[in-house]
Order: sequence, then structure tokens, then C-alpha cells
Amino acid sequence: MSHNSFGHLFRVTTFGESHGVAIGCVVDGCPPGIPLSEADIQHDLDRRRPGQSRFTTQRREPDRVRIVSGVFEDDRTPGPVTTGTPIGLMIDNEDQRSKDYAEIRDAYRPGHADLTYDLKYGLRDYRGGGRSSARETAMRVAAGAIARKVVPGLRVRGGLVQMGPLTIDRARWDWDEVERNAFFSPDAEAAARFEAELDAARKRGSSLGAVIEVVAEGVPPGLGAPIYAKLDADIAAALMSINAVKGVEIGEGFASAALSGQENADEMRAGNDGITFLSNHAGGILGGISTGQPVVARFAVKPTSSILSPRRTVDRFGAEREVVTKGRHDPCVGIRAVPVGEAMLACVIADHYLRQRAQVTPAPHWPFPR
Amino acid sequence: MSHNSFGHLFRVTTFGESHGVAIGCVVDGCPPGIPLSEADIQHDLDRRRPGQSRFTTQRREPDRVRIVSGVFEDDRTPGPVTTGTPIGLMIDNEDQRSKDYAEIRDAYRPGHADLTYDLKYGLRDYRGGGRSSARETAMRVAAGAIARKVVPGLRVRGGLVQMGPLTIDRARWDWDEVERNAFFSPDAEAAARFEAELDAARKRGSSLGAVIEVVAEGVPPGLGAPIYAKLDADIAAALMSINAVKGVEIGEGFASAALSGQENADEMRAGNDGITFLSNHAGGILGGISTGQPVVARFAVKPTSSILSPRRTVDRFGAEREVVTKGRHDPCVGIRAVPVGEAMLACVIADHYLRQRAQVTPAPHWPFPR
Amino acid sequence: MSHNSFGHLFRVTTFGESHGVAIGCVVDGCPPGIPLSEADIQHDLDRRRPGQSRFTTQRREPDRVRIVSGVFEDDRTPGPVTTGTPIGLMIDNEDQRSKDYAEIRDAYRPGHADLTYDLKYGLRDYRGGGRSSARETAMRVAAGAIARKVVPGLRVRGGLVQMGPLTIDRARWDWDEVERNAFFSPDAEAAARFEAELDAARKRGSSLGAVIEVVAEGVPPGLGAPIYAKLDADIAAALMSINAVKGVEIGEGFASAALSGQENADEMRAGNDGITFLSNHAGGILGGISTGQPVVARFAVKPTSSILSPRRTVDRFGAEREVVTKGRHDPCVGIRAVPVGEAMLACVIADHYLRQRAQVTPAPHWPFPR
Amino acid sequence: MSHNSFGHLFRVTTFGESHGVAIGCVVDGCPPGIPLSEADIQHDLDRRRPGQSRFTTQRREPDRVRIVSGVFEDDRTPGPVTTGTPIGLMIDNEDQRSKDYAEIRDAYRPGHADLTYDLKYGLRDYRGGGRSSARETAMRVAAGAIARKVVPGLRVRGGLVQMGPLTIDRARWDWDEVERNAFFSPDAEAAARFEAELDAARKRGSSLGAVIEVVAEGVPPGLGAPIYAKLDADIAAALMSINAVKGVEIGEGFASAALSGQENADEMRAGNDGITFLSNHAGGILGGISTGQPVVARFAVKPTSSILSPRRTVDRFGAEREVVTKGRHDPCVGIRAVPVGEAMLACVIADHYLRQRAQVTPAPHWPFPR
Repeated sequence: MSHNSFGHLFRVTTFGESHGVAIGCVVDGCPPGIPLSEADIQHDLDRRRPGQSRFTTQRREPDRVRIVSGVFEDDRTPGPVTTGTPIGLMIDNEDQRSKDYAEIRDAYRPGHADLTYDLKYGLRDYRGGGRSSARETAMRVAAGAIARKVVPGLRVRGGLVQMGPLTIDRARWDWDEVERNAFFSPDAEAAARFEAELDAARKRGSSLGAVIEVVAEGVPPGLGAPIYAKLDADIAAALMSINAVKGVEIGEGFASAALSGQENADEMRAGNDGITFLSNHAGGILGGISTGQPVVARFAVKPTSSILSPRRTVDRFGAEREVVTKGRHDPCVGIRAVPVGEAMLACVIADHYLRQRAQVTPAPHWPFPR
Repeated sequence: MSHNSFGHLFRVTTFGESHGVAIGCVVDGCPPGIPLSEADIQHDLDRRRPGQSRFTTQRREPDRVRIVSGVFEDDRTPGPVTTGTPIGLMIDNEDQRSKDYAEIRDAYRPGHADLTYDLKYGLRDYRGGGRSSARETAMRVAAGAIARKVVPGLRVRGGLVQMGPLTIDRARWDWDEVERNAFFSPDAEAAARFEAELDAARKRGSSLGAVIEVVAEGVPPGLGAPIYAKLDADIAAALMSINAVKGVEIGEGFASAALSGQENADEMRAGNDGITFLSNHAGGILGGISTGQPVVARFAVKPTSSILSPRRTVDRFGAEREVVTKGRHDPCVGIRAVPVGEAMLACVIADHYLRQRAQVTPAPHWPFPR
Repeated sequence: MSHNSFGHLFRVTTFGESHGVAIGCVVDGCPPGIPLSEADIQHDLDRRRPGQSRFTTQRREPDRVRIVSGVFEDDRTPGPVTTGTPIGLMIDNEDQRSKDYAEIRDAYRPGHADLTYDLKYGLRDYRGGGRSSARETAMRVAAGAIARKVVPGLRVRGGLVQMGPLTIDRARWDWDEVERNAFFSPDAEAAARFEAELDAARKRGSSLGAVIEVVAEGVPPGLGAPIYAKLDADIAAALMSINAVKGVEIGEGFASAALSGQENADEMRAGNDGITFLSNHAGGILGGISTGQPVVARFAVKPTSSILSPRRTVDRFGAEREVVTKGRHDPCVGIRAVPVGEAMLACVIADHYLRQRAQVTPAPHWPFPR
Repeated sequence: MSHNSFGHLFRVTTFGESHGVAIGCVVDGCPPGIPLSEADIQHDLDRRRPGQSRFTTQRREPDRVRIVSGVFEDDRTPGPVTTGTPIGLMIDNEDQRSKDYAEIRDAYRPGHADLTYDLKYGLRDYRGGGRSSARETAMRVAAGAIARKVVPGLRVRGGLVQMGPLTIDRARWDWDEVERNAFFSPDAEAAARFEAELDAARKRGSSLGAVIEVVAEGVPPGLGAPIYAKLDADIAAALMSINAVKGVEIGEGFASAALSGQENADEMRAGNDGITFLSNHAGGILGGISTGQPVVARFAVKPTSSILSPRRTVDRFGAEREVVTKGRHDPCVGIRAVPVGEAMLACVIADHYLRQRAQVTPAPHWPFPR
């Protein structure tokens, strides 16, 4: 049991506060012999990095990752490879303007963890949100970059499908578009609407929520387990553990409640090399176990709680006050949650890939002989 | 790590198949000295028991629980009390009509775990769904009955708030009504509509999904943890692990994506003995840690996959077929999921209650002295 | 984390008290498709069963195990096989003479857990030692019988190498002899001496300790892990967790402290299909990882604390008293600890076998190509 | 589950290789509000640091620890205090002479993990032993320094009680002496003999083993648990996980096998504020649970495997060779294992202290009312 670890066999432990010396993580259980360089991880980190558009915080963090252990290179290896020992990752904090946060030292910002940290621990590192800052998610993205390499053939992608009240048109879904706009929107037209909406929200001193969809292709069938170690249960925990997330759904999700039994059933046909499903309402998971179809999950991110409009609150001495959150904040934290969601999904799948390998090797052959 | 365990300090491990000898569970880590009799558990089990209305399976299981360990009574104890050692619980299976399931021996029912068990394990106990049967949830309810007693002052209740396309009117919410109708609906008027809708679905050889809301009152502030051991992350895993669940949300949930930052902020005022919130969009959890407000979660249950309408599928030898699921099934598994959801929420809270006690004893006093 | 579980991927959870309804265990994570019947387990249980000679307790327990879940049989399986779901095992308690224990209700027997249970929990099930009774070890033996089947080619055997001050002559070691005498002694001549010594101890109202050696052959190389998941660290915990055990050693053990570096080094030569070691001071483990040599461990069992000689103690009210332990007790609990030690060693190896398969599949080929 | 973590509620995860950039660790679950500065940790590290006498490796590492997270200080705290979030610790590696190790790149040193790492992972970081270097134990000492502060009134000390064939005279035990000689010997006279013996061994190109005793005073009663989470089982794992350890014993340990039941019983009398034991053969633990007496454990360390005498071995290509280990090595690794053993014992006790607080708060009052 660990408060700051995730996964069992592919196990990620993070540490570090927003305004401390550094943030870091330890990835334990990674198989040996996987090519891994800092550049591999940096690529994913750069997608999450702040300050890349006017829609994300202007904090200037290069987020340069260093691998401090678990990788080895000599003339017999094809560049650096994992050794099977724990992979230590570090990112130094550079652009900490602690003075920006002096006013939240005592007051509890609504929607933030300020209050609950004090209720729980009796004290907190209030600088930039301390441990509750979204800065921690950089380490998730780093771990996810490794997880992606653990499962052969795995591809995990994500897109923002709703911002505030605006949704994308799924008929225009284009994965290539995701990397072309500042919103990770798979619908170029929606991206333009998102831009206008977010600018307007910012002008109002407000913020917006979002819904993100993450999709994993190439997930081997048989991952997950009945009952408590269901693949979807672990995905739910993984995505819900991301800052500001308030909901998670798999496949048809909440909409499935309104479907009939006939509509919801994903019918099957025999394909050339396995089963072909005629639909994927299940989101690639049946009974907690992957079917081989794409695993599809969505999660809802609440609007950023750090806003310029004054809100009523109390302080740590029990006095009533108003609070306005200045500083550098994302007006929609959901945007940068896209690569974070991808990373968490990749970590869950990597973990279950190793778990399945432990319990069932070799994998069963299907179809069974008559 | 365990495939069939849930929780860390209040740890539940279940075993048993639908048509085996018995189902059982082990509750480990329960504090000593808590009064606990079989009647305490039976009360909750009876709420989940099948065959109580025409809207649930007609399988006749008395679901009589036996406590086989972990409880002791002598002339110095006030009836049987927990000893702190593992509590073993058993329910014998009685009404197994295995012949009903002969036809699903080879064919994969769409929406069921039949296929994925075979893909994972290479074989399965197909009688009544084996381990993937909802019968396992009886043990969750039993464990939840114990969990409720672990946290002083805790009250966990649930209600069905949507069936198929029909929703309740929240203005008519009446907790007392929940126990009066066959749907656990807090809205009596909605219950009548649910009844008509479900009868119609059954006549069509179809089934309906549902959304359930569970609410925990009396949750001490400070439960949960930052990052991966967030209270809401564990709730998400707990609820998503229930059979047929496809979505989980906390507080405002998916709807929060469309709120503005101002709307979503739960403002605070100073009450006489603690903080008063002016709203509860957060569902009682901020930054993964309980605020002291009611913890509110909802989960979506897909329509029962066992339906009388023929569906296209394949069998274990790769041949294409049609399958119709006869036998005794709930036309809306969401109904009996209500006490199961309550139990899972209670288990998560009990677990975090013990975790918090481990790390922070005594609890911090708030407000802090000036 | 669990107080009553052992292992990670091959995970054993036990429950039940000496004089409760039953004892039981859940084995989670077992690979599917392994032939497993009650007879397989019963064979090992019978070796541990009480009442088989005058040197063990006269409690008459048939110790008949029932498999209540996790195993399935139909016309396509070669008898019952594991399904990959949790294996539930139960043994009903039959011969409980609770009245024998009335006198220890209040007094603390020296060397027993009576006192510490009260200090920890504030109450205890005192009937026959409750949860601290060696009766629990029946479930370890049952789980071990399954573990033995998980690792292909594994053979785990044990023998009693010291009783009281008497030791075996290792030159006379004969594995076949172990099953022929009442002491599990691999040295027939020592068995005769043990018999005389134990009869004398019993006549004096006393008891004897013992040292047991357990040996696992066919352990694949590469099991274990650096640092905290060392194979020997887990063996140490496993053996130390057996009732009355006060010491554990691997290979040369404590004697290695007096060897020189040259003596202790197990030199290596190239064999036809792998490495040949010229000695096995290491007990088959280097750096926490198995070498492929036999894994050799020993553990020391203290003399039975239940003796007929009066000892000074206090009771639960703080009053000083003397206590004599009547009832049915093994004069040397070390004897029946032999199959228990074997079982624990088998469980550890099975667990690490699955862990290794998770992280490193396929196993590296050695020697490496030039 | 984690290969490189130790403990459950006080959870230590280490990473880093001997010749990598740095070694580090994460301590998760530490209670908040505990004063903790780098100086607190450095004090313990300096006791383990290499190069302090001619009896330890001449590698010059300042072993300067940096706290990178989990500690906070402002004008309201009494210096830096823990926040309850993960404590990240880092020590940069400075004096890595990797060229010294070129010759062990291919050959397997007897007694080392070289071979088993290759058998397990198929590759290894051979520089200075990589992850299997005793350098990792610096992080254990650092974590132990924190653990000592978690349990109020806890005092953990250790001494070397045997080196090679030489033992101390327990009648001369003087804790103050431990810090005065280069061997952590509690017997000054023995320290002189150890010195001569170790000089002689070194001249012979050989090395010596050792036995270390660690003692924890102020351990609250009630720590540990029945069955698998026994306090002594966790101590056994903790000590056996230290490099080169081959045996662990509690209290009387292996010697208890030769005691009679009467001798071994620790009789009890009623003291003024609790129970007084007339002896401590049990080493402070009964039935896996602490009695309140000092917890006493011993562990055996094999002679250093890195010796200047040539030994026969094979290389990674299967060729037979001889190997001589040059470089900078401790001729008796047992010496520096003393502070490491103390640290591991402190970590286990801190972990169980939190576990007990979780399950049983408040602690039971003893004696019980009549």
C-alpha cells in the first residue's frame, strides 16, 4: 500500500512539490532490455509542458527529464536499455515564483485542496499548491512514456472532445489533427470554437471544464481480471486520480444506461485471425477483461478552480474572507490533461500486461481445437 | 496485489462461483471490539437477495450468511464482537440449476465475460457465469455491512436515479421511499414509471440500464490522500468493479465540464463547529481528500446482457451462431446494484478511515489557533 | 497489505480459529489449467495431521479439506483443474474440547501469545489459542500443496535435523527415511535418539525445541529480485511466520560468519547445459536471486510453551499466579513444523516464479552468444 | 507489490546504482509534523560512510543527503517538518572509478550477484556491482533515520558481536563503547582482537564474516500481528534483505532449539505500571506481537566475496576462468552492516507502529478492570 504509488507490477511512485527543489518518480518492475533514452520521455513531456500556447499557464518550465538509474549502455547494447532495476527520473524545478502564492498561505481557495490538506495533515506546503499542484502530472507522463514501450504494438492516443458546453463533431474525428491545434482536439472546426470560448471565459475571469477521450489500440486480449482487478476498475482509478477529474466512463459509459439490451450487445463474427465485433459499446472490456478491441475511456475535468473572480471562503483561523487567485494558471486544465490521461491509460495496460504474463503464460490459443 | 481483494487496511477478499458449493469472503484488518452478529449482515444481504419482486431473478437463494471466524463471545462481551482477526463469511449455494446453462457452454453471449474468460484463461466455469456472476456481489454487501460499523457515525444510502431513459425528479427525493418500492427509487412517482418501462422491456425480450446514486454522510474530513490514493480514485475503482458498471462520477461529475469556474466553486462560510459549504458540486472531496460534506457518487449500469432476443456471436471453435439467453435473469441488473454500490462505498470509506488513523493520529484541530 | 495474507502473485489468505466452526484459506493468482483435486491436498495435510504418533497432540482432527471454488471439471478437462479464479479451501473443526482451556481464559501462559493478543486487541478468543493456534498451519500446508504444482519440476522436501540438544549425522542423510519415522528425521539412527529424548522430556513435564532443514530442488535460476524482494528475504519471512520459529538461515547461515572468503566462495565450472558449482554455501541464492542450485534453508523452533511444569505469570487483572498448561499438546512442535516449512518454501518459490514470468519473459538464454 | 520497496504504511522505495548519477529513495506514509532536517539524516549516514577507517572501502563518498520533497518550513513551523507527502532523498555519486571494474564485465565473481543478474535479466550494470552494490544501503540508513523519529521513545542500537571465529564477551557489553571503535563492538577488548584478526585476513587476501546484534528499546506493546504480518517475520525479511546476510534470529534464536520448555519460558510478574518479565528469551516478541520488552535480533553476514585470492569461475560466454577482485572493498562487510541493521529494524517498527494505530486506536488499557 502506498499513497503515492500506482500499479502493481509496473509500479510508479512519484514525489515532489510544485515549488520544491525537484519532482521525481521511480518506475519499478519494468522489464529489462527495453531501449530507453531521455529523448523518448522528453517527447511526451513536451506535449504536456506549460507555456506552449496562451491557453496554458505561463510558468516557464523546460521540464527536462533526467534518468538517474535503471538504464545501462555499453558497446553490446543498442544504446541505453532498461536493466530491470528501478528507473529513477528527475525534473528540476526552475521557475518557482513563490511570492505569487503568499495570499493563499492562510485562505482556502474554493475547489482547491488547500482546506483538505489542512484538515488532514494540520499543515501544508502552500507554495504553488505544493503536492496537489498539477505539476506532479509531469511524472505521470514520463512514466507513461516508458509504459508505452512495455507492451508490444500498443498505441495510446487522446483528444479533447468537449470544452465547457461545446463538443466536437465525431464525424470529423481526425487523429492527425490532435497534434495540430492547441486543444488536442481531433476536430479542427471544434478547435476554433474552443479557442473563442476559452478567450471569452478568460476575459470574464472564469474558466472552463472539459471532457477527454483516450483510446488504446493494440491491447492484447485477456488483460484485466474478474472482480476487483478489472481492467476498467484500474482505469477508473487511474483517470480519477488526475487532478480535477470528476468522472470516468468506459465505452458507451453513462449513455449505456439508456440503451436497450439489444442495442448495447456487441455482436461477434468470426474473422480471419480472431473475432470481429460489429460494434464497441463495451469500450474493449467485458467482465473486466480486454477483448482485443480498442479500449476507450473518457474523463471529465472540472473548470479550473484558480479564477480571477472573487469567491467567498474562510481562512485557517476560521475567519470569513474573499479570495481571488492570481498567478499563472491554465484557464482550462483539461487541455493539458490529455497527455496525462494517455499516460495513465498506458500505465494501467502495461501493469496488466505483466500481470497477465505472470498468471497465464503462454497465452491460450483461440479458437480452441474442436 | 491480489486479483480478488479490495482495500488495503480494511481488506476484503472474495471467492466462489455462481454454481459451486458456496461463496465466501475474508475481511481482514477490521478493528477489534465491534459488535457483529450474523443478523447485522443478513439485514443488508436481504436487500440484495434475488427473487424478492418480479423485477429480479427468480433464483431462490436464501443467502444465509455464516460467520466462521473473527468473532468471539463470552460472558464479558456484549454479544459477539470482532476480535481483530480475519472475519470469514460463507453463503452456501442452494438453488443451482446448472442444466439451464448448457447452451452457453460453447457460445459466447454478447456483453458477457464468456469470451474474455476463455481468451484469458483458456477455460472457464460456465455454469451460471461462474466467477463473473453477479452472485459474487452478495459478499460485497456482507463486507459492506461490517464496513458501516467501522466508521462511527457513518451512514451510507443509495437510490436508483435513472432506469433506461427515465430519470427521477430530484425535487421529490425521499430517502424513506427507497425502501418502499421495488426499484430503490427515492422518487415514488418515478418508481411507477420504472415499473411500466421495465415490464415493457421484458415483454420485448429486452433489458434496461440504470444510474445509481450513493451518498455517504458522516464521513470524517481528511480521508483520502493526494495523488494515487485519492478517496475518489478508490471510489471510482470500487464502483467500476461492480458487474456491468460502465461509468462513475463524483459530485457534479460529467456535468461539471459544462460549468464555469464560478459556478463550480463551493464557497465556504464559518459555521459554529466547522466549515459550512454553500454547495456541494465537489461531492464531498477536494484534492482527493474528504471535506466533511456528504460524499456523493453515481454509477451507470449497462442493460442486462442476458436477453431473450437472439444475437449474433461465435463459439469457442470459431463458428458463427446465434445465441438467446434463457434462464433466470434480472431484466435490469441496476436495481440490485443499489445495495452493492452502497457496500462498496462503505468499504472504501472504512479503508481510508483506518489509513488516516495510521498516518495522522490525533486528527488536526481546526480552526488553528491564531 | 494484509495481516493474514502471504505472497504477492501466488497469494494465500487464511482465516479461522482453533475452536471456531472451521479454518479456511483463499489461494489467489494460481495459473489456470493445473490439475487439482482434494486428494492432492489431502496427501500433504495427512503428513501434518495431529494424532498420528504419541509425539504429537492427541486432538483427533481428520483435517478433511474441501475445495469450494476455483476448480472446474467437465468432459473436456482431465479431471478437476484450476480456473485461475480464487481457490477456496475449508476444513471443518471437529474435535474442539473447549473446556480444557477454561483455565487460560484469564492467565497468560509464558511463551504464548495470550498476553500479546490482549495487549494488542484488548480481547481474544482464548479457546485453544484461537487464531494463534498451530491449527492455522494446516491451511499453509494446503496452499503449499497447490504451490508445488505451479512450478514445473519443483521438488520441496524437509527433515528435522536437531531435536533439543541432539543433532543428526549428515553423513547418514537419507530422504527416504524421512517418511519412515515419527520425527521426519533423515537419519534413522538419530530418530531413535530423538524418541528417547522426547519421552524423557515429556516425563519431566517439559518440552523440546528443534531445527528443521527444507530443501527445494528444481528451482529455476533467476527467481527473486535485488534489494527488498530478495528470494531469501521472502523465505526468511515465510519461515519466521510459522508458530514458535525463532531463527532462519540460508545455506551456510550463521556458520558462514566464521568462514574465510575463500572457503565461502562457491566456485563455478562450465557444465554441459549450464553452470556447475563446486559447493553450495550460498544455499542456492546469490544477491537475492536463485542460481539454479538447490535452495537450502533451516529454521529453529523453540520448545513447546505448553508444559505441565508450573510457571509464574500474571493474569489479565494484573494479579500474579502460576499456570500449568494441561490439554493436548505436541511435546515438540518442531516435528509437525516440517511439512509446514516445506509448504512455506513452496509458496515463496511459486510466488517468485510468477513474478519472474511477469517481468522477464522469455527467460534469458545463457551462455550468451559471443 | 514492488521489488524495491519495503514496508507498508511507512514505505521505503530506493533506486540507483553504485556508479550511476545518484542513489535515492522515497519515504511514503510518514506522519506530518515531525521535525526533520538533512542534518538529522546525515548523522546516521556518517556512521555508515565508507573510508572512515582502514577496515572499510577506501572509496571516498561524502554521502551528502539532500531532501528534495516532503518537508516544509515557514515562520510557523519549528524548523523544517514533514508534511505527510512523500519524502524524496538523493545522494549524488561522486567517486566512481568505473575502470576498476572492467575485468568483471564478463566474468562472474563467486559469491556475487554477477551471475544471477545475468541469469535473471540477461544483462546488468556491472560497474561497481550496479544495483547489487552495498551502496544502496546508504538509503536504508537514511530512511531509518526518519523511522526512528516516527515512534515516540524508540531507541535502536546495534553492535558487532562476532567477527570471523571471534566473539565478544557479553559480560563486557558497553553501549558507549560501540561508537568508540572501528568495529561497532560493544566489547572494547574484543575490538582489539577483531583488529588483529582482520589485518591478518587482509594480508592473506581473504575476508571475514560477522554477526551483528540489533536491539530496539521503547517498542510499544501490541505491534505486529498474528500469522503472516508477525513483527518477527517482517524483521527477518528486513535483515535478510541486507547484502550478504545469510541468517536472522530473534531473542534466543537458534539456541532456543536446545533449551527446555521451562528454561525458555519468560516468566512474568506484576510491575507497578505493567508486566515485568524475568527473562527475555523471546526477544520481545510473542506470537508475532511485541511484548514491550526490548526487541532483540541478530543477523549473520558472510565474508566479503570480493577477495584478492584467485577463484575459479566461468564467464558470460560459458568459458572457464579465474577471477581476482581488485578494487576498493571492505574486508568485512559486516562492520558497516551495523547501522544498516539498526535502520532496517527501525523501519519495521515504524511500519508496525502505524499499522497498529490504524487497527487499534486507542490502545487497550491493561490490566483490564475486574
